[in-house]
Amino acid sequence: MFSEKEIAQFKETQLSDKTIYDGHILSLHVEQVRLPNGQTAEREIIHHHGAVAMLVLNDAGAGAFVTQWREPLRRLSVEIPAGKLEPGENDPDEAARRELNEEIGYAPVTPLQPVTTFYSSVGYSMEKLHLYFSDRIAPVAHKRPLDSDEFLQVDWLTLAQAQAAMADGRIVDAKTVTAIYWWALQRATGRLTGDVG
Amino acid sequence: MFSEKEIAQFKETQLSDKTIYDGHILSLHVEQVRLPNGQTAEREIIHHHGAVAMLVLNDAGAGAFVTQWREPLRRLSVEIPAGKLEPGENDPDEAARRELNEEIGYAPVTPLQPVTTFYSSVGYSMEKLHLYFSDRIAPVAHKRPLDSDEFLQVDWLTLAQAQAAMADGRIVDAKTVTAIYWWALQRATGRLTGDVG
Repeated sequence: MFSEKEIAQFKETQLSDKTIYDGHILSLHVEQVRLPNGQTAEREIIHHHGAVAMLVLNDAGAGAFVTQWREPLRRLSVEIPAGKLEPGENDPDEAARRELNEEIGYAPVTPLQPVTTFYSSVGYSMEKLHLYFSDRIAPVAHKRPLDSDEFLQVDWLTLAQAQAAMADGRIVDAKTVTAIYWWALQRATGRLTGDVG
Repeated sequence: MFSEKEIAQFKETQLSDKTIYDGHILSLHVEQVRLPNGQTAEREIIHHHGAVAMLVLNDAGAGAFVTQWREPLRRLSVEIPAGKLEPGENDPDEAARRELNEEIGYAPVTPLQPVTTFYSSVGYSMEKLHLYFSDRIAPVAHKRPLDSDEFLQVDWLTLAQAQAAMADGRIVDAKTVTAIYWWALQRATGRLTGDVG
């Protein structure tokens, strides 16, 4: 992927790693690293178990969105369903199905399609997010409850409605913006047909 | 944007806010909040000054990408040019031009086009990223130096090359994935012409 020469040219070497805080959903570490020029620098790094997010469309071609309070933003936010991986959880596909069940009460009837995987904020966080897609979903017989500190509302939006929610500022998070661009791209390139909304 | 009723239904109310760590690029706070059902919960929140990222295309239609070590990922990463806002910096457009100068030695010759703004990780971070576009850029006469702890390599990739770098795992970060989907969408919908790569 990268050549040994490229890696040697830019690699930072960890000299020390101190845990500042070990929390419920993240830990904060401060590392000392040796830079390529031999000098040292400090790196503030969030450790995180990773997350899943799912763009799922119903038979009418509308996508599931959840509205919830996001305390870091001090506001409500409209997002595609998502959730954190548990510590040690190595199957993002299973986590995706769990979160779809808990958040919207649906399950994919064919395997979820992996869309892409990305790190949310490469400058300071290890968080890796797995984005999935399905347009073959059905209501579950037994919906599992939300986490005790989760409160949300489910809405089904057409692509045009989702794009309008981006334009008017109801949708403001990276995973949902990414999913909407991808959705629009599939539609534009004829890989998805769908609603006329 | 959201109704008072929706806000009242989901709002979390901050009861306390404790600074755990006040670092160079981020701070970690822990808040106690009151949930809509009256119970309390803890929220771990990263405070961050925000960031800018820029998709810029040269006259041949190729985009500027920088390769650098990302210690949180323990690996190299190929990304669009980007940078943090300084504390108190309120003009992301100016920050975008500064980072383009420092990272690739180019400046836009017409105003940068705002593409979208998103929060990188709404579950735990305040970081807001402003994404810009330009296909009218020129080399600067006087390139400013990189930060002393920054080492990077600049490459110009066509859309097809950038998509290949996503597919083979050299590109793995949220802002760059988002920018590539947007770039492909502009191309697919005829809003950008460009290279045949």
